[in-house]
Amino acid sequence: MRFTEMLAAAWQKNDSLLCVGLDPDPEQFPASVRKSPDALFEFCAAIIDATAHFVCAFKPQIAYFSAYRAEETLERIIAYIHARHPGIPVILDAKRGDIGSTAKQYAREAFMRYQADAVTLNPYLGFDSIEPYFDYPGKGVILLCRTSNPGGSDLQFMEGTEGERLFERVARLAAGAWNKTGQCALVVGATFPAEIARVRSLVGDMPLLVPGIGAQGGDIAATVKAGKTAAGYGLILNSSRAILYAGQGNDYAAAARIAAQQTRDSINRER
Amino acid sequence: MRFTEMLAAAWQKNDSLLCVGLDPDPEQFPASVRKSPDALFEFCAAIIDATAHFVCAFKPQIAYFSAYRAEETLERIIAYIHARHPGIPVILDAKRGDIGSTAKQYAREAFMRYQADAVTLNPYLGFDSIEPYFDYPGKGVILLCRTSNPGGSDLQFMEGTEGERLFERVARLAAGAWNKTGQCALVVGATFPAEIARVRSLVGDMPLLVPGIGAQGGDIAATVKAGKTAAGYGLILNSSRAILYAGQGNDYAAAARIAAQQTRDSINRER
Repeated sequence: MRFTEMLAAAWQKNDSLLCVGLDPDPEQFPASVRKSPDALFEFCAAIIDATAHFVCAFKPQIAYFSAYRAEETLERIIAYIHARHPGIPVILDAKRGDIGSTAKQYAREAFMRYQADAVTLNPYLGFDSIEPYFDYPGKGVILLCRTSNPGGSDLQFMEGTEGERLFERVARLAAGAWNKTGQCALVVGATFPAEIARVRSLVGDMPLLVPGIGAQGGDIAATVKAGKTAAGYGLILNSSRAILYAGQGNDYAAAARIAAQQTRDSINRER
Repeated sequence: MRFTEMLAAAWQKNDSLLCVGLDPDPEQFPASVRKSPDALFEFCAAIIDATAHFVCAFKPQIAYFSAYRAEETLERIIAYIHARHPGIPVILDAKRGDIGSTAKQYAREAFMRYQADAVTLNPYLGFDSIEPYFDYPGKGVILLCRTSNPGGSDLQFMEGTEGERLFERVARLAAGAWNKTGQCALVVGATFPAEIARVRSLVGDMPLLVPGIGAQGGDIAATVKAGKTAAGYGLILNSSRAILYAGQGNDYAAAARIAAQQTRDSINRER
């Protein structure tokens, strides 16, 4: 199944726009987990099983694995999601961006090695840095557009001579000339609802991956209102730390389940 | 030693502005090497030993390792350079770009895990996506500015309302407010000498990493003329394929040595 179809099916089946981000930081694990030789896997598998019925996607952040020489663990975690929770798409958050011959290697990494259903990419190098990912025609290609970190405006908010800002140009290209397989999506931060609405107006029903729900403080009501499609979908609302570390003790998985369900329900009240 | 000092010492010691890019593609290895269970390492080590006296830096491209589950090989290759050719800086070409908490993990990956002396980064997410790398104060932080791939102009050439193009804004910030440790450098492609000159005019003597010498067809004379500092330094001119695959048979290391020496000498004739 193609990424957008898989996502649409998960939106409906779990009645959820929530994505759980897997950014496992061993320093924040409960002591009992931290002691295990396979702590990263155990922690993530417990979070996955606890939250899978309340999400539309999982989004592992590769940096948290590569910093700890744990690529093989990431492979196992993604395989675990596919085996235990088939139908939930896995978005590899890698934000790769490189020229064609190197992009081919990164596409191979994301889709063949890790078996991700979609990958996040950085558009700074332009179309040919995105193109090799379209060689995997069912896979999702999610481009950074507008981010909500403090420096997000340093470049993205630059206004061009035609009155178009940089992030608007990315949105226009992603929805138009660049979207060769119909599997493009965009990353748009949660702290600027007016800009989510602006992006939505530029891209039709394209899925928007919105980090910043939860720990990063984005307002759920404003985000959903600004970003949802007419049918009440179109959003992948990511929460990482607020779910992963909802509980500090051995009940962390149960606490994550409650946090995920509550976040999903808070989102649904605004749809 | 700090990255810029290490680089300056290597420029002088080897009388070279040439950087050899390590983008090892097993499909292009000689048959004898391809058969080895440790082919990636053997190929790179042979290239490194053959060319180390003619370079100012080595630049491994991480995608060529991560696509083949070979991160551990990349660790060994970088350790090999440090052990056998101390003083030659290693630039990890990773083009990472993410928000602060994730950038911390990527910085750990580049500088603690891989022991690189510098890393390439993508500036699209702004200053706080760069800042965590400055926690390693001697390490080089090399930002994408202007790339020479076909899509390089899609975003980088966008002209702002103040007449400043996106790549010029990156250059200005990298040479100014962002350069907290004095260890910033920029990536500027070789196919637009006028733009190399423009960047040089914005950044003083900051090192410029220029891919595209050799296989990508950038003109050495025009590049050196446009990018060198008054003292005849300031450039890290990268060649990958034209050196790595200079010979197709068992003489590939000797062929790489000759290609590296000739490229270095061609560059020096223009300084």
